[in-house]
Amino acid sequence: MADATLEIRPGEVTVDAPPAEGPALTFIGHCQTPWKTTRECPRRGDLEGPLCQVVVDDVWARALQGIEENGYLQILYWMHRARRDLVLQNPKHKGAIIGTFAIRSPNRPNPIASSVVKLEKVEGNVLHVRGLDCLDGTPVVDIKPDKCPHA
Amino acid sequence: MADATLEIRPGEVTVDAPPAEGPALTFIGHCQTPWKTTRECPRRGDLEGPLCQVVVDDVWARALQGIEENGYLQILYWMHRARRDLVLQNPKHKGAIIGTFAIRSPNRPNPIASSVVKLEKVEGNVLHVRGLDCLDGTPVVDIKPDKCPHA
Repeated sequence: MADATLEIRPGEVTVDAPPAEGPALTFIGHCQTPWKTTRECPRRGDLEGPLCQVVVDDVWARALQGIEENGYLQILYWMHRARRDLVLQNPKHKGAIIGTFAIRSPNRPNPIASSVVKLEKVEGNVLHVRGLDCLDGTPVVDIKPDKCPHA
Repeated sequence: MADATLEIRPGEVTVDAPPAEGPALTFIGHCQTPWKTTRECPRRGDLEGPLCQVVVDDVWARALQGIEENGYLQILYWMHRARRDLVLQNPKHKGAIIGTFAIRSPNRPNPIASSVVKLEKVEGNVLHVRGLDCLDGTPVVDIKPDKCPHA
């Protein structure tokens, strides 16, 4: 799934990573967003941003029971266009070389993003939310009530 | 990896889930905690709790560069003892039947936990943190700077 042909910037370092031999994920749904290219995606989600949808596959729909009690949700999703072998990165907004685990770049050994979203409405197996920052069609890995310890 | 033999409580519902056919995870390290059985684990991490370690595998050690600038980190880890087929659950602390995505139970289609921890010290490829709630030896999936929008 990872696209290791993505361009590397000056100062960036990759490793000869071992093959991914952990458990396989099962995608439970997908995101509907206004963004069709990575260039259009906001760098970070905005809780007052555009209304987006998390569409849950039918087999998991019953797992949404009671979710409407939550004002905020945590969504985990898979950034399928990312590289998985970068250890040092040169992000434009930093202006310095920095380790992959010290930034929230999509490029990481397991390209799983975590976003907190505001839940506006539940319609059947569709969650209407604000705060996503991902491409339209991005596969979803998990949905949880938000329990940020700072909230 | 999932343990589908774990006991089901009254009112809980499983589905005939499709096989996990998404991308494979690569474990990047493991947690060292005082808890050797699930019964001993706290139900939720405590930022003032016992000092624990996140030990990063050598191949990924350079990806920690600059991480000491962060007071709080988000750790994603794999709850390898969980069931992946539950859609309705009967958690003891709720006293009611509730959907898997409406609680933070370990039992979920992709048993990935997300904890915010306080970073106390970095020593080589070892992070000393407070706030974990998992079994000793739990495999780690990702480490990110914490960016809770409520912080």
